[in-house]
Amino acid sequence: MTTKDDALEALSALLGERLNRSQSDRDLHGRSEGHFQDMPPDAVAYPETTAEVAEIVKICRSAGLPIIGWGAGTSLEGHALAPRGGVTVDFQRMAAVLEVVPEDMVVAVQPGVTREALNTELRATGLFFPIDPGANASLGGMASTRASGTTAVRYGTMKANVLGLEVVLPDGRIIRTGTRAPKSSTGYDLTALFVGSEGTLGLITELTLKLHGQPEAVRAAVCAFDTFQGAVDTVIATIQSGIPMARIEFVDAASAAGFNKAAGTDWPDAPHLMLEFHGTEAGVAEQMERFAELAEDFGGQGFRWAEKAEDRNALWAMRHNAYRTILQAHPGSDPITTDICVPISRLAEAVEETAAEIAASGIPGPIVGHVGDGNFHALLLPQLGDAAQKEIALRLSANMAERALRLGGTVSGEHGIGMGKTKYMRAEHGDAWDVMGAIKAAIDPDGLMNPGKLLPGN
Amino acid sequence: MTTKDDALEALSALLGERLNRSQSDRDLHGRSEGHFQDMPPDAVAYPETTAEVAEIVKICRSAGLPIIGWGAGTSLEGHALAPRGGVTVDFQRMAAVLEVVPEDMVVAVQPGVTREALNTELRATGLFFPIDPGANASLGGMASTRASGTTAVRYGTMKANVLGLEVVLPDGRIIRTGTRAPKSSTGYDLTALFVGSEGTLGLITELTLKLHGQPEAVRAAVCAFDTFQGAVDTVIATIQSGIPMARIEFVDAASAAGFNKAAGTDWPDAPHLMLEFHGTEAGVAEQMERFAELAEDFGGQGFRWAEKAEDRNALWAMRHNAYRTILQAHPGSDPITTDICVPISRLAEAVEETAAEIAASGIPGPIVGHVGDGNFHALLLPQLGDAAQKEIALRLSANMAERALRLGGTVSGEHGIGMGKTKYMRAEHGDAWDVMGAIKAAIDPDGLMNPGKLLPGN
Repeated sequence: MTTKDDALEALSALLGERLNRSQSDRDLHGRSEGHFQDMPPDAVAYPETTAEVAEIVKICRSAGLPIIGWGAGTSLEGHALAPRGGVTVDFQRMAAVLEVVPEDMVVAVQPGVTREALNTELRATGLFFPIDPGANASLGGMASTRASGTTAVRYGTMKANVLGLEVVLPDGRIIRTGTRAPKSSTGYDLTALFVGSEGTLGLITELTLKLHGQPEAVRAAVCAFDTFQGAVDTVIATIQSGIPMARIEFVDAASAAGFNKAAGTDWPDAPHLMLEFHGTEAGVAEQMERFAELAEDFGGQGFRWAEKAEDRNALWAMRHNAYRTILQAHPGSDPITTDICVPISRLAEAVEETAAEIAASGIPGPIVGHVGDGNFHALLLPQLGDAAQKEIALRLSANMAERALRLGGTVSGEHGIGMGKTKYMRAEHGDAWDVMGAIKAAIDPDGLMNPGKLLPGN
Repeated sequence: MTTKDDALEALSALLGERLNRSQSDRDLHGRSEGHFQDMPPDAVAYPETTAEVAEIVKICRSAGLPIIGWGAGTSLEGHALAPRGGVTVDFQRMAAVLEVVPEDMVVAVQPGVTREALNTELRATGLFFPIDPGANASLGGMASTRASGTTAVRYGTMKANVLGLEVVLPDGRIIRTGTRAPKSSTGYDLTALFVGSEGTLGLITELTLKLHGQPEAVRAAVCAFDTFQGAVDTVIATIQSGIPMARIEFVDAASAAGFNKAAGTDWPDAPHLMLEFHGTEAGVAEQMERFAELAEDFGGQGFRWAEKAEDRNALWAMRHNAYRTILQAHPGSDPITTDICVPISRLAEAVEETAAEIAASGIPGPIVGHVGDGNFHALLLPQLGDAAQKEIALRLSANMAERALRLGGTVSGEHGIGMGKTKYMRAEHGDAWDVMGAIKAAIDPDGLMNPGKLLPGN
């Protein structure tokens, strides 16, 4: 066992200026987009190769130093904070698209590639990577939190779109999971185990991702509803009738008002569904027609169709900017994000209970949701420095988690656990949480990989 | 620690006649459909509840008795044999469909339900469970081997269609993984870990499965090709162009000849693709037209369309009976099944090399494959009792595994590892196999769950 100083010296010798111990860089990597205190690491490492990552891990291990992966820093539950110090491994210099294989519809990337950078690179191939969590997150980070977003209803989450990984284990060994073959039945699905493990079992140094063909035709639309129940009934009927929606998003009246203010739209003061259809020209036309019929049955009205690509892009930019737009409309607030997911049959109930409780609390809390997945977010907005409001907001958030479990759902649809939601893990998983703990102890017996996150006893 | 006899007494006391120690029942559960020696257990248990399964596990554990799960006995790699004796837990009395929730498109089932029984039960709901490995396997067994089959190209494998599980752990604790919500980011994906774990981590006592809407229109077809390369190029072009094939199956000329003999068809002496299209009436018509154009570009000819349901059913019955049909055409043979899966870009190469080597060996070995997944099987047919032929067949099988790995694929697309393929695990997974071993040791430290299968050191 060496000392921390010796280990940091050894890392400096390995990486030169790519080990940064400056206060400013440590601070930068000690912050998150969530409502957490700053928790900076002792140093930030910028490896360029998998071999360097393995060396970093071995050196840190020799001194018992925690190791925290860092992608784009966009996670919302404090996943990349360093509550016990240690070394943050920032993958910004491992951001190459390594190989595109169009015949297999797969791509190999380093973990620091962002989803937008990947799709820019893919533009000429006729293929794209669909997972879209809103933020321009890194693909390593997206795998680590099992991210999803607006397109999961059609293309699945990261779970369905990561075919294989290269991982540096806590002891410095480098393993590969999965292959480029479309499926396999050869043992434990380690790919699926590492996806969503939030850096607690190792560092992902390469990903093999599934790509999809760029659809021949894309159309988007917005439709208002009298009630949330009407919107949800439309979603259920749509999915059951097999209309392969590419996106089906809910925004509440408060969010719609925010869009009107920020983007100059004139949506009615009502809940809305935002939609996207992918397919052949004829297929999309048929999907749109069938959807419109269903929506009308459940009180949908005032369809606005975005025919042109620029109108469509403006629509989704508005949806992606909802978080920022809402914040701007509520200056001086101290936002708390939420993220619950329930069986679709219980979604109307979950949203209506949540909306009613927020309305009664006096704290603003617009709701948006990936309703095709049963997943929604309330952005709770207590005033900064108002301890009473903050407590109310935290109680609303806790009640949402409890509600998700009561209705047969999960306390996180896509943001993950990090530091923010370990308190709900026992209620959701019971003894299965201890099975996660046993796996963690087997693979990372010293508990050095991203400590303080996800697991029991942290 | 009690003795084996004490444990078997305790099991008799718990289960009465539902603990069977007769030679005939032990023999029945000591046989497999693979080319393995018989390996009977000491007793066969027929639990009716999860609580009984937990008791069985605790009693067996107290005496160090192995515990082996048994579904329909259709696995092909000796998964359910009892090389160290112990108690086989046969789930035939836990075969209830517990709850169908049409709004959520999910069903909860006990592990002994077979896929055909489930679909019979679902018929009136407008929903179906698509995974179709050919055999009428149990759903618990299908989850345990991560089964797939002819429809995985459209609907995914068991990995994509198991939402949650109830599992009895090796220490008798009962856990639940997953929820009925469509997605979750709350920690390690234990559902995905148990799917494909072949009973080595616990016994699955309940499954929550994803259902799909019965398609409005279904059409099937068969198309002959001059060369296998033409068939594969058609598959690649089809998938890349986004035609959502429900089934796209390859059969070689020898298999086609077998069909002609068994079913009285008159297919030409050539490789074929067998196809199925699901969608709306207009959508299926468009898919069929586009597919036919692509197929013609690559030498496809002589389309036979199965318009009627009975013709379609006859077609797929023929495909499902291929194994039996081929066996009947080669009486006195000692069949060896194979199951490799490669990236689709390497599929033509993999099949052509395999076919050439089989042809040169003098042993019959018809090839069929789920080509949309890059997965194919050669059914190798040495003569029973001919040691030299058997050795040649085993070498052909080993060469296929080596070929799969050389081409970036996997030694099993869907049959699993069991006792038959542990010898290839190191080559496919390297140190990742030891990670599987570490997980096994953490969850089943006494190594009692289905010993001798899948893992290192077994």
